[in-house]
Amino acid sequence: MSPPDVTLSCPLPIERYPQVLLAHGGGGKLMHGLIHDVFLKSFGGQAPRCPHDATVLEVLGGRIAFTTDSFVVRPLFFPGGDLGSLAVHGTINDLAMAGARPLWLSAAFIIEEGLPMETLGRIVASMQEAARLANVTIVTGDTKVVEKGKGDSLFITTAGIGVVESDQNIHPQNVRAGDAILVSGDVGRHGMAVMSVREGLEFESAIKSDSAPLAEVVLALLSAGVDVHCLRDITRGGLTAVLNEIAEAAELGILVDEAQIPVRDDVKAACEILGLDPLQVACEGRFVAFISEKDVSRALEVMGLFAPAKGARRIGQVRADRDTLVTVKSGIGARRILDMPTGEQLPRIC
Amino acid sequence: MSPPDVTLSCPLPIERYPQVLLAHGGGGKLMHGLIHDVFLKSFGGQAPRCPHDATVLEVLGGRIAFTTDSFVVRPLFFPGGDLGSLAVHGTINDLAMAGARPLWLSAAFIIEEGLPMETLGRIVASMQEAARLANVTIVTGDTKVVEKGKGDSLFITTAGIGVVESDQNIHPQNVRAGDAILVSGDVGRHGMAVMSVREGLEFESAIKSDSAPLAEVVLALLSAGVDVHCLRDITRGGLTAVLNEIAEAAELGILVDEAQIPVRDDVKAACEILGLDPLQVACEGRFVAFISEKDVSRALEVMGLFAPAKGARRIGQVRADRDTLVTVKSGIGARRILDMPTGEQLPRIC
Repeated sequence: MSPPDVTLSCPLPIERYPQVLLAHGGGGKLMHGLIHDVFLKSFGGQAPRCPHDATVLEVLGGRIAFTTDSFVVRPLFFPGGDLGSLAVHGTINDLAMAGARPLWLSAAFIIEEGLPMETLGRIVASMQEAARLANVTIVTGDTKVVEKGKGDSLFITTAGIGVVESDQNIHPQNVRAGDAILVSGDVGRHGMAVMSVREGLEFESAIKSDSAPLAEVVLALLSAGVDVHCLRDITRGGLTAVLNEIAEAAELGILVDEAQIPVRDDVKAACEILGLDPLQVACEGRFVAFISEKDVSRALEVMGLFAPAKGARRIGQVRADRDTLVTVKSGIGARRILDMPTGEQLPRIC
Repeated sequence: MSPPDVTLSCPLPIERYPQVLLAHGGGGKLMHGLIHDVFLKSFGGQAPRCPHDATVLEVLGGRIAFTTDSFVVRPLFFPGGDLGSLAVHGTINDLAMAGARPLWLSAAFIIEEGLPMETLGRIVASMQEAARLANVTIVTGDTKVVEKGKGDSLFITTAGIGVVESDQNIHPQNVRAGDAILVSGDVGRHGMAVMSVREGLEFESAIKSDSAPLAEVVLALLSAGVDVHCLRDITRGGLTAVLNEIAEAAELGILVDEAQIPVRDDVKAACEILGLDPLQVACEGRFVAFISEKDVSRALEVMGLFAPAKGARRIGQVRADRDTLVTVKSGIGARRILDMPTGEQLPRIC
């Protein structure tokens, strides 16, 4: 997860929301307000400041990373993945974004009574295969069953532990004016893969989720000596949420060049049909890297060696000027502000 | 969690159950069959053999313990606790049963749309207070929201990391014939506290859950040099499930003296009304210790110093003879077999 440790400009205080709304899980302003007003106000006093996707903890003379995510995506199976592989990739990626080598996962299952055993078996097999391919081990777990109508077939919560081997300080507060911003590939594919199935959209070929483990490419960047200042995987709220979170945390501005942001044509088309902005749509196998400008070509070279980052691009730069957090330069040179998403466009996407 | 790493005599193969039943979450034979047939068959090849409530992992030249549990108890608030405190105690206790000092927890929330914000706030505050009292820190988390009717107000999944400081080998396979069996206090209280509220039973005073963190007393036993062979906290399936799991794993028999097993009168009365066996009812703040007979008085002395173990008793002994796994000697000298629970008596108890 990523409760950004920043005073997000929350124009929507929790007091206005006597009940939790779907939008509180959407990755935008409401979710950050909830995390800030409810969770960080309680846990924050005791918890270490927690700006990473995973928390880095000092233990036994070294550093480990620890993270958790619940997965509630519907439908359970979608082109390019399923609840099980997503639950493995999501937690691996949060560890990777802290610069950690993911080693162990836990898996807790909340099953709705009546779930076909065969479905459960397929999801579990998919988790195991995803874990095997990413070289992590599922070492502990739990099973709970709730009555029919009190759940939704299956929810999986994974937690993960990784070891931080690099000495680099990867952290939003480490982002500097002048840093180059890279994105590891085309954005919005996971969200549109799921939405296309849900909305029954048909294209020439199915949009496949980008869901993938990102640790290998991140560790390669670090061992190639690329001066990495911050990493963040793109999930709920899409690229827009990531850029806003980091700009806010770093107290700097960001300028990105829309023409450089890779979005596939079928994803663009699906977004147009559904009235969505691809820059706000979730990925599950993409990340943003803030690195020293001098290392851009080396970084892109390294990223190109790994399947999930073959389409990596430099999309913009961090600026000292922060009149606006995130600005996008369009193809024709116009500029617009890319504000943190507010409502819930895509419920149950991860 | 505790998927006992044993070939449990599963007379109920998964093939007979095309769908998941409530009883598959009940802590008895069906749950062990599910864990064995679905989870361990997939994950087990890769996972370390996992007979503990928590898994012990070697990292950075030392040992850490790692565990997870989802919590789905209904109602959210019950005498002596709530979903939040339970989610903290349950994971702390799983770590403690591996002899670890619990340090860090994660907390993932699956919220049903419409949950009153005030309820969420109370649960979160209760988690924080339980963590503070037990000297652990909630360091990372996640929030998902599902549509009304697709969840049940709130599910919380915690995972935990602890450090194993002791060199003692705490493990079901380390149990020896002749070991004394201690229980840390009266059993069945948590389950009956929850059931009394659900069933609207009224007693002179409310039955309060025994939910409590157990790490402090376990660490004290270890540092007092008590020769601890195995520890297991009593949760779903009650004392009966624990004794059967350990007997099966250790390939030994167990004889317990019913008169020595502490059960409060109000718990007995509530069990009688509901037709339950208190020995099958969950606790959330009790554990069973298998220790060298020579250390019994020292162990009871140490346990008596800690509130959740003040009522500790020696309840039986491990026997070389294993014609039956677990035998109970009643007050009048009759013997009966204490078999692993089968169905689901108490859904949503934790």
